[in-house]
Amino acid sequence: MSALNTQLSPELLIKLEAAQEASRVLGTLSTAQKNKALEAIADAIDANHGLILEANALDMDKAEASGMSSGMLDRLRFTPERLSSLAQAVRDVISLPDPVGVVVRGNDMPNGIHLSQVRVPFGVIGAIYEARPNVTVDIAALCLKSGNAAVLRGGTAAEGTNTVTVELMQSALKSVGLPQASVQTIDELGREGATQLMAARGFVDVLIPRGSANLINAVVQESKVPVIETGAGVVHIYVEESADFDQAVEIVHNAKVQRPSVCNSLETLLIDEKIASELLPRIVSRLEAAGVTLKGDTSAQTLCSSLGSATDEDFATEHMSLEMSVKVVAGLSEALEHIRKYSTKHTESILTNNITQAERFLAEVDAAVVMVNASTRFTDGGEFGFGAEVGISTQKLHARGPMGLPELTSTKWIVRGSGQIRH
Amino acid sequence: MSALNTQLSPELLIKLEAAQEASRVLGTLSTAQKNKALEAIADAIDANHGLILEANALDMDKAEASGMSSGMLDRLRFTPERLSSLAQAVRDVISLPDPVGVVVRGNDMPNGIHLSQVRVPFGVIGAIYEARPNVTVDIAALCLKSGNAAVLRGGTAAEGTNTVTVELMQSALKSVGLPQASVQTIDELGREGATQLMAARGFVDVLIPRGSANLINAVVQESKVPVIETGAGVVHIYVEESADFDQAVEIVHNAKVQRPSVCNSLETLLIDEKIASELLPRIVSRLEAAGVTLKGDTSAQTLCSSLGSATDEDFATEHMSLEMSVKVVAGLSEALEHIRKYSTKHTESILTNNITQAERFLAEVDAAVVMVNASTRFTDGGEFGFGAEVGISTQKLHARGPMGLPELTSTKWIVRGSGQIRH
Repeated sequence: MSALNTQLSPELLIKLEAAQEASRVLGTLSTAQKNKALEAIADAIDANHGLILEANALDMDKAEASGMSSGMLDRLRFTPERLSSLAQAVRDVISLPDPVGVVVRGNDMPNGIHLSQVRVPFGVIGAIYEARPNVTVDIAALCLKSGNAAVLRGGTAAEGTNTVTVELMQSALKSVGLPQASVQTIDELGREGATQLMAARGFVDVLIPRGSANLINAVVQESKVPVIETGAGVVHIYVEESADFDQAVEIVHNAKVQRPSVCNSLETLLIDEKIASELLPRIVSRLEAAGVTLKGDTSAQTLCSSLGSATDEDFATEHMSLEMSVKVVAGLSEALEHIRKYSTKHTESILTNNITQAERFLAEVDAAVVMVNASTRFTDGGEFGFGAEVGISTQKLHARGPMGLPELTSTKWIVRGSGQIRH
Repeated sequence: MSALNTQLSPELLIKLEAAQEASRVLGTLSTAQKNKALEAIADAIDANHGLILEANALDMDKAEASGMSSGMLDRLRFTPERLSSLAQAVRDVISLPDPVGVVVRGNDMPNGIHLSQVRVPFGVIGAIYEARPNVTVDIAALCLKSGNAAVLRGGTAAEGTNTVTVELMQSALKSVGLPQASVQTIDELGREGATQLMAARGFVDVLIPRGSANLINAVVQESKVPVIETGAGVVHIYVEESADFDQAVEIVHNAKVQRPSVCNSLETLLIDEKIASELLPRIVSRLEAAGVTLKGDTSAQTLCSSLGSATDEDFATEHMSLEMSVKVVAGLSEALEHIRKYSTKHTESILTNNITQAERFLAEVDAAVVMVNASTRFTDGGEFGFGAEVGISTQKLHARGPMGLPELTSTKWIVRGSGQIRH
């Protein structure tokens, strides 16, 4: 272990050791004890709007002075309404089932040993994210409910706000007799703190990066701690020739327009050439009426003159805005090939009434979620019935797709014998 | 993706792209097709002992000339008997249930969408291991059955043997109409091949290192590809004061002596001071009669004069031989503290008749497998009923403890709608 520790500063080491110690307490708490702590945290947020808003206003001033974009500023901003929602989000976690202690599987061995695999907390979860002070409280609540200690690096822009919310959470934890180190921020260590967190193998059990593709990529590449990747969504819908046209217009519109800033929204429409001349203009006019700017390949441009020209880069981009691309394809094989090339393996949907085509699409597309005749916006922990969502994993290890509380746990095998030895 | 590829040589890139293409075929095969391929591989090994033994003899000569240890030489050696066992191991995989296509969970959403989570292959699995030519065939068979393409780096010492077995497997695959690139070796790329494999994020979905602690550590630290860590076992048994003495003697003997060279064998005995004077001499004499060399702390040495003096390093060592350490502890808390300090989180066992002590041990020890009144040798895929074992994971992400075929798969969410949009 010692070689691994060389990069960790004494300041971080103290926090990580405190987190480990706290995690040992959290791991053996009853659901009722954890819910009591969550209630105390929600109450603390409700009772301290003034303190939080004051710190947030200072962060906002600095951010504005530094020229932060309006989109980023909006994410950084707390309002009384947002704080009420935040407290409510913590209370919502109370009603979620506790994943810890759930027996995943088990049986008796032929020799009489009782074997069971039980969900246990990871231990210490690290989170690296950007300028979203609500994430500080959201992740802390989810970690707490799943019995994990949280070490948070929330970005310099929100440092003042995070300091206050973490202090409030720590006081709340203390008030119900739990270790304050259950939730800690390392924002004060700056960028170096994030780098060290990625090197803290043996102290941090899992690292969850949330934010831009750049941030996630950097963590995925550099981290020595196992990472759960919540990746970008370059999401496709392929409209096959047998699709219901009215449905197609509505689903494409919904997938793009209902909330364009999220990862499950549509980025590229692939449409079969046999129906493109009739259907594409209908889709385009519905999208344009909703303010969507479209680019297309040459065939799409020929059919719809309003379309700009789509480049390779356009097809590879997660816009998170009302921009999207269109490509006319010769059939399912070409659609699959395009998806293979540009997909981030998040969500892909086919619109069709042909069973053979649907089944081939479901079997061959390599993505966390594959759909037939549904809007890609359904890739969501809430929609899937998980209650809360930790993020949407685009990796294949451990968790894939929307993650709920059980995805914040590991397992432990319990072997109960009565003197058995192996022969 | 392009930035990630810069380190990959053209030779490796060709193989990885072929592996990806093969994985797309493997992912949609029926169980019968995969079993037919496994049968062909087993037959090819049975029919070609001469070829394989000839190549192996050359590898053995080179290894002996280079001064390889006798233990390593033994692992490198094939014999007709070992080849027959190897073919049988491949046939055993045929009888294992196919994990692909298993529905893990599912339900209908309130809006009528049918939701299911289904097991799918990872895609391409990389394996890095050392001088064990049997692993080449074992891993290839397990990957094939779970629908994954395998890219194998088996170490220079076994290169000649691996070349022959991989060629035989590729011919067998071809004979049943499957892509030869389903199983490939990159031994010819040398150490650089292993380094590049670790950088092949986007091409290799999971990397499994097998071998020494050093090798596994290097992969875990350097790899940008997600790793499943099959780690070392510094395994403890704590004999609590209420333990059955006869059972304790037998369990400790079994855990240490039955197969000392494997990761689930005992390394350190912790014994309560209240029973040590009576029980420890009995345990020690039973172990010494079996050829075990023991070291102990001062208290243990006082009770058993034959014991050497155990250092910190002894307590941290996975001996894989008939050496072990003993420590006399004041009770469960001290035992837990010692385990926390030295455990590699593989397997830990308590021997006791006290429920409170047993439950506290099960709850507080952080390990893949925790036991009461059983030999640590039971941490094993075969014993757990998995049929074959891919290895024993000591990480908390994705798989923990003995891994079977399902642990070589990921999942995919399938959403079957009928025109649903999100409101």
